[in-house]
Amino acid sequence: MNINIPEVKVPRIVIIGCGFGGLELAKQLKNADVQLVLLDKNNYHTFQPLLYQVATAGLEADSIAYPIRKIFKGQKNFHFRWGEVKEIIAAENKLLTSIGELKYDYLVIATGSTTNFFGNTSLEERAIPMKTVTESLNLRSIILQSFEKALLTPDLQEQEALMTFVIVGGGPTGVELAGALSELKRHVLPNDYPELDFRKMRIILIENGGEVLQAMSEGNRKAAKQYLEELGCEVWLNTGLQNYDGAVAETRKGKQLRTFNLIWTAGIKGAAPAGLHSDSINQRGRIITDEYSTVSGYQNIFAIGDVASMVSADFPNGHPQVAPVAIQQGKLLAKNLERIIAKQPLEKFRYFDKGTMATVGRNRAVVEVAKLRFGGFAGWLTWMALHLMLLVGFRNRVVVFVNWLWNYLSYDRNIRLIIRPVERAR
Amino acid sequence: MNINIPEVKVPRIVIIGCGFGGLELAKQLKNADVQLVLLDKNNYHTFQPLLYQVATAGLEADSIAYPIRKIFKGQKNFHFRWGEVKEIIAAENKLLTSIGELKYDYLVIATGSTTNFFGNTSLEERAIPMKTVTESLNLRSIILQSFEKALLTPDLQEQEALMTFVIVGGGPTGVELAGALSELKRHVLPNDYPELDFRKMRIILIENGGEVLQAMSEGNRKAAKQYLEELGCEVWLNTGLQNYDGAVAETRKGKQLRTFNLIWTAGIKGAAPAGLHSDSINQRGRIITDEYSTVSGYQNIFAIGDVASMVSADFPNGHPQVAPVAIQQGKLLAKNLERIIAKQPLEKFRYFDKGTMATVGRNRAVVEVAKLRFGGFAGWLTWMALHLMLLVGFRNRVVVFVNWLWNYLSYDRNIRLIIRPVERAR
Repeated sequence: MNINIPEVKVPRIVIIGCGFGGLELAKQLKNADVQLVLLDKNNYHTFQPLLYQVATAGLEADSIAYPIRKIFKGQKNFHFRWGEVKEIIAAENKLLTSIGELKYDYLVIATGSTTNFFGNTSLEERAIPMKTVTESLNLRSIILQSFEKALLTPDLQEQEALMTFVIVGGGPTGVELAGALSELKRHVLPNDYPELDFRKMRIILIENGGEVLQAMSEGNRKAAKQYLEELGCEVWLNTGLQNYDGAVAETRKGKQLRTFNLIWTAGIKGAAPAGLHSDSINQRGRIITDEYSTVSGYQNIFAIGDVASMVSADFPNGHPQVAPVAIQQGKLLAKNLERIIAKQPLEKFRYFDKGTMATVGRNRAVVEVAKLRFGGFAGWLTWMALHLMLLVGFRNRVVVFVNWLWNYLSYDRNIRLIIRPVERAR
Repeated sequence: MNINIPEVKVPRIVIIGCGFGGLELAKQLKNADVQLVLLDKNNYHTFQPLLYQVATAGLEADSIAYPIRKIFKGQKNFHFRWGEVKEIIAAENKLLTSIGELKYDYLVIATGSTTNFFGNTSLEERAIPMKTVTESLNLRSIILQSFEKALLTPDLQEQEALMTFVIVGGGPTGVELAGALSELKRHVLPNDYPELDFRKMRIILIENGGEVLQAMSEGNRKAAKQYLEELGCEVWLNTGLQNYDGAVAETRKGKQLRTFNLIWTAGIKGAAPAGLHSDSINQRGRIITDEYSTVSGYQNIFAIGDVASMVSADFPNGHPQVAPVAIQQGKLLAKNLERIIAKQPLEKFRYFDKGTMATVGRNRAVVEVAKLRFGGFAGWLTWMALHLMLLVGFRNRVVVFVNWLWNYLSYDRNIRLIIRPVERAR
C-alpha cells in the first residue's frame, strides 16, 4: 500500500529524518516548487546536546523535544509522515516503510547516527546508551532506581555496584554527563538519601585515548579534566573496556570494576537505512557522498549530517559528526536541489567550523570559537546562551531558561522522577 | 527480609501512599516524636487534578509530579521507601511489600482510588483510563497516534473511528478532558493536520445521569453543558455504555458508536491493599472507618482520603472522594496520632467543604465556593489561581504558569509528543 500523499506535478523530495540536517533542509525549501515529504520515526525533533540534562533530572524531556508538525505549520509544500524506513528500493525510486510504500524523485537520507559498541556484544547488551529521548528518560530512571535499591540492600558489594557510575567515552557527551552526575552527588542526592554514605558514590569517566575532549586544544583538554576532578569525578585515561557482565566491568589490562551502571558514550556509527549498495557505506556505517552530498553510485539520492561521510581534501575521513555540519549541509543541499531541478550548476560544500564547546558543571565550561579559547564562568555563560539560541521554539527556550535559573540558584535538580521504571537483566 | 530502616525507640508510623492525604499527614508529623516510614509505588506525588492537561499536551508530566524525597528534605523523623504493599498482616503488625517486610506500630492507609469499571470486562480491557501520570502520558500518545493513523488510512470508517473521542463520565475529570480536547480541535490539531477534515472529529461526553457535574448547583450544571456545546462537544445525557469491542461502543439502548478512543472517567473505587477483614471494606472498595479514621475492627490501623469511607451523620455514605477531604483527614489524624501516643482524648473529624470547581476551556469555568456560585472568566481565573497554589513546589508553579500563559496567548498546546508510542489490541 502506498502512503497517502496528495499527487502533484512538481518533483517530490523525500527526506528521511528530522534531526538538525533534515530540519534545516526542509525549512530552506519552504518556497521551492517541490513537494516535500519528511519521514521520521518520532513525531518530534530532538535537541540532542541536552539529552544528558534530561538523564540527570535537570530538564524535562518535553523541553528539548519539539513537535515536527508545529515547526512546519503553514508550510504548504510540506507533508510529515510518522514512520520508519525499512528499505530503499533505488531501482524503482521508492521506499518501503513501516506505514507503506513511498515513491520519490529525490531522496535525502538524514538519519543521523546511533550508538556504536564496535561489535562488543557484552557491552551492547548491558551498557546503557543515551542517544534518544527515551534512552535518556530510561537513564534517569536507572540512576534514581540505583539509589532506591542501594538503600535497601544489606550487601555492601551490591551497594557499591549500585553507587558506582561508569561513563565510557571522554568526548563532549561523556564529559558533560560525568560533570552533571558529579553535581548530583555534591548538591542533590545526599539530601535525598541521608541514610547513604555518599563517599561511596563513585563517578568514573573512562577514555581509551590519552586525553578527554580530543577535538579541543591542549589547554582546554587539561582544563576539562581538572574541572571533572575538582567535582570529584575520577578520570581514567588510556583505558579500554573489554567485557561487562552487568555487574563487573573489565578493562583491557584486566582491572575489574564493580558497577551496575555502565553508560556508553564512546562511539557512534551512521544509521544508514537498508537498500544501498554496500560500496556506498563505509566501515563506520556512514554513507559516502561527494561534495554535493550525492551518494556515491546514485544520481538522485543524497545524504547529509552524521549519517553522511563527505570526503574532501580537507576532510579525507569525512566531516565531524556534529550539528553545525548537518545544518550547513542541509542549507546547501536545499539550494543545490533547486539548482538540479532548474538544471543549473551546483555549489560545492565548504564547512565553516564555528568551534566547539562542552560544559562540565556549574560555572565550568570549555569553549573554542575561531581563534578564541576560554573556559570557566565566561565559557559556561557562552555555552548556555548558545544552547538556548539553538533550541527550537520560544516556549522551550523559556522553560529551559527557567529550569537553568532555578537549578543554578537552588543548586537543585528537580525532575528526579521515576515515571517509567526500567527493569534490567543482570 | 525486612526493609532496612534504622531501629529507634519511638513508635513507628507507617503510611502507605503519598497522595494528598498521606503527604499532609507526614508533613504535619514533622516535629512529632515518632518514626515515619512512607511507602509509595511511585517516587513522586502526583497532582491529579491536572492529569487531563498532561493528556492533552498542555503540560509536561514533570511539572505536576513532585519528588517525594524533595518534599521531606531535612525532615529527620521521615523515611521514604519506594515499593508496593502486597498485604497487611495485621495480627503481626507488619506489611508484606515488593521490597520486603515492614513492622509498624501504627499503620495509615492512604492508597487513594483507582478506576472503577463496575465489573464490565469489555470496558476494563479496552477503555483508556486516566488516573496516573503514566496513563495520562499514554493517553497523550494515543490521541496523537490516532491522527497520524487517520492521515494514512484510505478506509473512511476507520478514519471516523480514529477521529471520534468518547469520554465516559460527566464528573469534573470528564468535563475538563472533553473541554481540553475540544480546544485541541479548535485551535491546534487543524494546523498540524491540514490534510484532515476536522468537521469529522467528534468529541462525545457520555453521562449516565441526567446532568453533568452532578455535585454542583443547577445553574453551574447547565453552564458547564452549555460551555461544552459551544466548544463543539456533544453531550449525551442519560446514556449508559454496555459494551465496547475496541472499535464499536454500544449504549444500553443499543445505539452503536464507532470509536478507537474510548476514555473512561466514569467511576473510581478504593484502592485498598489486601489483608484487611472483608467486613472492613465496602462495595466500592473503600475501607470503613469511624470519625477518627480508625479502620473498623482494628486498633492501630487508620485510613484516610479516597480509600476511606468515614461514615458520619452528615455523610452516611462516606465523604466525597476529593483532595480537600484527604488533606483535612491527614491533618487531623496527625494530631490524633500524637494524642493516641500521649493517651489523650481524640478529636472527631468535621469536613469543611471549601467548594468545588471545574474548568471547561479558555475563559470558561464553573466555581462554587461557600455560598458563591459563578463561572465564565472570573471562574476560570479563580480555578487557575487555586490550582497554582495547590501545586507542590515553587519550580512546578513557575513552569505550569509559564505554560498556561503561553497556551493562553498562543492558543497552542506545545507538548504534542509521542515519546512512548502505545500499542493497543484492537
